[in-house]
Amino acid sequence: MDMKPSIVCAAASPDAGDARIRWAWRNMPVLRRIAEAFRISRPFRDLRVAMSIHVEAKTACLAKVLAEGGAEVALTGCNPLSTQDDIAAALAREGLHVYCVHGATAESYESHLEAALSCRPHLVLDDGGDLARRLHGDLRDLARDLIGATEETTTGIRRLRALHRRGGLRYPVIAVNDARCKHLFDNRFGTGQSVMAAILATSNRMLGGSTIVVAGYGMCGRGVALRARGLGADVVICEIDPVKAAEALMEGYRVLPMDEAAAIGDLFITVTGCRDVIRDRHFARMKDNAMLANAGHFDVEINLRELAAASVGCRQVRPGIRGYDMADGRVLCLLAEGRLVNLAAGDGHPIEIMDLSFALQAESLRYLAESGGRLPVAVHPVPESIDRRVAEWLLEARGIPIDSLTPDQSAYLEAFVPD
Amino acid sequence: MDMKPSIVCAAASPDAGDARIRWAWRNMPVLRRIAEAFRISRPFRDLRVAMSIHVEAKTACLAKVLAEGGAEVALTGCNPLSTQDDIAAALAREGLHVYCVHGATAESYESHLEAALSCRPHLVLDDGGDLARRLHGDLRDLARDLIGATEETTTGIRRLRALHRRGGLRYPVIAVNDARCKHLFDNRFGTGQSVMAAILATSNRMLGGSTIVVAGYGMCGRGVALRARGLGADVVICEIDPVKAAEALMEGYRVLPMDEAAAIGDLFITVTGCRDVIRDRHFARMKDNAMLANAGHFDVEINLRELAAASVGCRQVRPGIRGYDMADGRVLCLLAEGRLVNLAAGDGHPIEIMDLSFALQAESLRYLAESGGRLPVAVHPVPESIDRRVAEWLLEARGIPIDSLTPDQSAYLEAFVPD
Amino acid sequence: MDMKPSIVCAAASPDAGDARIRWAWRNMPVLRRIAEAFRISRPFRDLRVAMSIHVEAKTACLAKVLAEGGAEVALTGCNPLSTQDDIAAALAREGLHVYCVHGATAESYESHLEAALSCRPHLVLDDGGDLARRLHGDLRDLARDLIGATEETTTGIRRLRALHRRGGLRYPVIAVNDARCKHLFDNRFGTGQSVMAAILATSNRMLGGSTIVVAGYGMCGRGVALRARGLGADVVICEIDPVKAAEALMEGYRVLPMDEAAAIGDLFITVTGCRDVIRDRHFARMKDNAMLANAGHFDVEINLRELAAASVGCRQVRPGIRGYDMADGRVLCLLAEGRLVNLAAGDGHPIEIMDLSFALQAESLRYLAESGGRLPVAVHPVPESIDRRVAEWLLEARGIPIDSLTPDQSAYLEAFVPD
Amino acid sequence: MDMKPSIVCAAASPDAGDARIRWAWRNMPVLRRIAEAFRISRPFRDLRVAMSIHVEAKTACLAKVLAEGGAEVALTGCNPLSTQDDIAAALAREGLHVYCVHGATAESYESHLEAALSCRPHLVLDDGGDLARRLHGDLRDLARDLIGATEETTTGIRRLRALHRRGGLRYPVIAVNDARCKHLFDNRFGTGQSVMAAILATSNRMLGGSTIVVAGYGMCGRGVALRARGLGADVVICEIDPVKAAEALMEGYRVLPMDEAAAIGDLFITVTGCRDVIRDRHFARMKDNAMLANAGHFDVEINLRELAAASVGCRQVRPGIRGYDMADGRVLCLLAEGRLVNLAAGDGHPIEIMDLSFALQAESLRYLAESGGRLPVAVHPVPESIDRRVAEWLLEARGIPIDSLTPDQSAYLEAFVPD
Repeated sequence: MDMKPSIVCAAASPDAGDARIRWAWRNMPVLRRIAEAFRISRPFRDLRVAMSIHVEAKTACLAKVLAEGGAEVALTGCNPLSTQDDIAAALAREGLHVYCVHGATAESYESHLEAALSCRPHLVLDDGGDLARRLHGDLRDLARDLIGATEETTTGIRRLRALHRRGGLRYPVIAVNDARCKHLFDNRFGTGQSVMAAILATSNRMLGGSTIVVAGYGMCGRGVALRARGLGADVVICEIDPVKAAEALMEGYRVLPMDEAAAIGDLFITVTGCRDVIRDRHFARMKDNAMLANAGHFDVEINLRELAAASVGCRQVRPGIRGYDMADGRVLCLLAEGRLVNLAAGDGHPIEIMDLSFALQAESLRYLAESGGRLPVAVHPVPESIDRRVAEWLLEARGIPIDSLTPDQSAYLEAFVPD
Repeated sequence: MDMKPSIVCAAASPDAGDARIRWAWRNMPVLRRIAEAFRISRPFRDLRVAMSIHVEAKTACLAKVLAEGGAEVALTGCNPLSTQDDIAAALAREGLHVYCVHGATAESYESHLEAALSCRPHLVLDDGGDLARRLHGDLRDLARDLIGATEETTTGIRRLRALHRRGGLRYPVIAVNDARCKHLFDNRFGTGQSVMAAILATSNRMLGGSTIVVAGYGMCGRGVALRARGLGADVVICEIDPVKAAEALMEGYRVLPMDEAAAIGDLFITVTGCRDVIRDRHFARMKDNAMLANAGHFDVEINLRELAAASVGCRQVRPGIRGYDMADGRVLCLLAEGRLVNLAAGDGHPIEIMDLSFALQAESLRYLAESGGRLPVAVHPVPESIDRRVAEWLLEARGIPIDSLTPDQSAYLEAFVPD
Repeated sequence: MDMKPSIVCAAASPDAGDARIRWAWRNMPVLRRIAEAFRISRPFRDLRVAMSIHVEAKTACLAKVLAEGGAEVALTGCNPLSTQDDIAAALAREGLHVYCVHGATAESYESHLEAALSCRPHLVLDDGGDLARRLHGDLRDLARDLIGATEETTTGIRRLRALHRRGGLRYPVIAVNDARCKHLFDNRFGTGQSVMAAILATSNRMLGGSTIVVAGYGMCGRGVALRARGLGADVVICEIDPVKAAEALMEGYRVLPMDEAAAIGDLFITVTGCRDVIRDRHFARMKDNAMLANAGHFDVEINLRELAAASVGCRQVRPGIRGYDMADGRVLCLLAEGRLVNLAAGDGHPIEIMDLSFALQAESLRYLAESGGRLPVAVHPVPESIDRRVAEWLLEARGIPIDSLTPDQSAYLEAFVPD
Repeated sequence: MDMKPSIVCAAASPDAGDARIRWAWRNMPVLRRIAEAFRISRPFRDLRVAMSIHVEAKTACLAKVLAEGGAEVALTGCNPLSTQDDIAAALAREGLHVYCVHGATAESYESHLEAALSCRPHLVLDDGGDLARRLHGDLRDLARDLIGATEETTTGIRRLRALHRRGGLRYPVIAVNDARCKHLFDNRFGTGQSVMAAILATSNRMLGGSTIVVAGYGMCGRGVALRARGLGADVVICEIDPVKAAEALMEGYRVLPMDEAAAIGDLFITVTGCRDVIRDRHFARMKDNAMLANAGHFDVEINLRELAAASVGCRQVRPGIRGYDMADGRVLCLLAEGRLVNLAAGDGHPIEIMDLSFALQAESLRYLAESGGRLPVAVHPVPESIDRRVAEWLLEARGIPIDSLTPDQSAYLEAFVPD
């Protein structure tokens, strides 16, 4: 199967990309350990892997690990604004097949997905489900050799589960997102740190003493809320699930419906996976200079069409911030065009966190490869043994031993009537 | 079916008990709402309910709600040290059938369990699984009319699941502990606050600036760690699960094996559900004046036999604290005789938390009653609708509205390819 | 000079008091070190010391250290509700001159102050300024031999400074409160922990998820706010100083005037040193079941007369809690009768904190004794060398070495133009 | 007096600078309010003001406020790496006299100071004391018309006080740093947020789960420690003052001497105002990949000469990070060349914080101007009334009313014997 030639930004600097990749690599001990094993075992020998993911330094490390394991890798982005061209160029120079350009149009973006899938992959790595969308749609023929796929995000898995409920799923998927070593770390601590880092760098505004409204108290939302509070903000939570709302309350946050929160927030962060979380009637009540940022996968959480309609003009007020002038003189400040703020206005998740997530990805893809296609068509959890092992490797890399059960203790935990 | 006459401490003051029960009742709005509904619907008419639970003000409220719903209630303790005699006396005076005395011997304790079960209950409420142990052992004949049971604790459920795996379970059980409104609140925030409150009141020692070692980073352990840190301590976590250990690490705690932690702790709190978590080789390394407390269900987490063997004498050094003199001059300070410190040296979980847990209990027992015995013999989750409703009632009682999905938003979340 | 015979509660148990004193002593390494030095140097030989202080285990240790240093000690309380009779009895049994009874009437309380002063003290230790009040009033004749005094509290020092500004001060006073090792620790962390501990033990209510209004953001108030937040509460601050209010805001608290805060608090804690902080128009707006506690030195911060006038009845709803029935059905819950809640409903500050404060007291009294009356009549700071030494001894007791400046570094810090 | 023509980077974009200045201006309500008053009162009419300060958007706003007040402003930097050329160009275009270029050599830097002073200023604004150094040295003749100066930093004030102790100070200085509205906010919360923001943006590394060593627990250091902990790190403090060390301990931090901390830190942040805080013997013990950042005013806290000597090579590993290769294979990563990391690798303090600091500056300069030279030569505090007013204006800008004392309450606080 011939791979199409790489499509990357011509003006990019592969050297700069390489330096960033090496920095990440130095801080990913778990992935380095897996790479070492893969170099010997070659689990992906003769296999083609299509990846759709934010193309930056850490994902580059994952792509290289798969290549070390024998895979032929076709890599494309999963969001036109999150591609870092230098990284793409560095990977293309090393012989990976790379199809992505920062700021691609919707049309080019789709053509890049197609280019990646045109290799007829044995394995697919999806982040948000765009490859799955094409493989269940117009490009279903390219799924012929497919053994299975992994999916990185809450959003992607929700979409695949919805599809499977309706009987439409066509291949087995490993829900990497649902592994404990993924959502407990990446979604919560990774999103928490990277979203706040992006907002700090983009705005230079003081978070201590401000009111930050976080819409969504799932794993990602609670990470954002935790770090917003850790930076000194008074945090308000908006939720639709009463149990999560009650939990936020008991954690000491204020819980309000968005209609009320709109009037008091200095900064709004959406992280729900849903659309129209902030819309015209909320814009109408916001304070002058309120900032709006989205940390959900798609740029639909803040209704941008309604924001534009509500304003009388807009302009760049600082790199990464667009000011919308309201008729009454207020200015509402949109960060990163409403796209995933930590990737569109920052470097994405911290390296050490992605070391865990991508260790799960690498091991799950190895597991799929070894399954040889015998896994039923369904959304599968990451095997508990992989989850556990990744955590063990992290602890080992940091030199942290932990306790283990004695035989007596194990017996005690298994007994119905302990002595 | 005749109930045996109540057995309560003769010296107890039902008036004092009553006052405490009324104080709790005023702070349990969700349970009050359920009581109001039960008074009309009478879901337990003609049913006998046996409860084994820490007998104090909040559980008294639950017992009364069941009685309001038509049940004949037989109540016994689940730990000889956690019974508050005034409360037991107040309930007995109101006509409930109560069998418990603070500080009962092991033998009396067992006879009280038997007294409660002698009513041949239709429904059983267990906290830790002591009624289940007897109903699967010597008192199996008393399970003849049994429709099902609820179990309150992680420990009890683990035991029942182990039993079910071996084919031994005899009736359906609702795992109340596993409901979100239970373990997210009761285990974490309830245990966290009440354990620290008991230690503060018992010791008068400064927690800020001290090193607190928390063994076990399950839901209970993380609540304890959170509050210990909130009180200014440097918190160290001991774990056997690498994922939980990694999580504790990312939350900013130090993670150490107990062999190392033993040497640096000023206060040790076990909350693992396992035995022998702290034992002779740890006692040998501890600092002078180190305090030891257990927050796990059973008093086996700190090996008391080995502690006694390692010491050359012991005496009460303050109410609730026993000082063990080591041969080398150090004194190790055991709180509440190694029993569940928040109940044995305090008033247990905060009232508002138990309002949630007992709302789940009341509704789960209603669900069992309405099932009329049609539920298969297994360990069942609390129905999601009950879980959700309890949280909704909490929010309503506090006057906190939350957002809800529009039809468009629901459709978006269900779609595979969102527009 | 003959001392009057001790006046203590006849029913008290000196043995129980002794056990508590020994527990405190074990946890006061700095004071133990000073005692050892005093036993040799005997700085108070032939001197009489009158102390007015909360009589409990930790202050007992201080009294004993002074006695070890050669002083004849006359001890009285500084608040009728904070005296622990067992402790008083234990000290009297050891030969100290003790005049205090828990729950003394205002009249007896004053007679106890007089009994303590009747020894014509050389040195006075005041906590809140009650001895100073008498020594500047009707008992001025008993100040004849007085070398000087120490004062423990913010309130007491403010009163003495006001007096000195008007030219009325009669002897030199060391403002122990203003030493860094006092107010940074005792006022902030000591008050913070002990106030929350007392409220937890008294109420059994859940603080996580509640709104706690803290009136006063001085050192004590910020300690209370910090621990209230650490226990999961949403904390609101009321202040009169705009800089402190701005500081609270930047720390992430909400800042509101009491008129607004009154309507949203679940728990109110006054810690201002001022009177009438919460009064009738606030009671009128409070939620049903709101709790009121005072952590300021005097019981004037919550206007109890107006609370009584606003209510139609009141009764004990739980030990330490009085429920006031409002005409509209609401109940407002007053803790510890509006007195210093951490002492009236708890054991006061944590032991390790008082170890620092009382080390300062002991050393300041030694400094006064050595001054031989040559200190001018004024309010003096604790000498910086004492402050520093006490902190050094704390660190040594915990085995914590710290860095020190090299000669080059010292020179750098002193230079105007560093090289 | 003629001003020298501006010296700014020719390649800079005044438009880009202008946009950043406008963004800051929108978020500085207190300074806007002062500007409005100055436009009418013109306190600096006919006065020349020389400013040495980090030239970026917020300081530009201050310069413009002084110009609005009638001053002729001569502006130079206070650190060659912190100048933002676009800002300098924008100010020069508006007619201010600007002398600074990013990355100036030591020689040019000094010539820029001289150019600013050549106007023979009436008022001087210093940040770190470089203008003072020249005005007390080779350029003392240019101080002829000087009424007085303000100094922004702890470091600058310490130097001026040392000078004054030796009798060398030549003009009155207002210690802006020591105002409550300065050091409580700018030093603590401003430094805390901006240092962590710069490190996050520069490194993309995970702080949660890492060990961060903060050297220095003054106001700046505690801000850094607070935010480092808020981001999930395990924070270790190094100090030379035993009281501050004890305070850090009670706040829950670990306190260690640098010799021990060196071996466990993942990230080191110096913020002491002293030199050689981290040096060769510490580099020798550090972990591979340890990061080093300085947040003190001068780049002497990490001994860079010894770092270079200890390494066998070094190279840029990521923009803003230099990797030093140790002979044993470890790499130590130096951020921002050891210069003030929040300014050299970020946008400096948050806007809202500088709104307070610069309001103090503007009002202090007005106070100096109005003093007409009658202030004695000394280091003076900012008048309490200014401090208070700035906080009031902040609260007003945010719409936050606070409580005020009634006459009765004031009387109570002044009384020696309250009724």
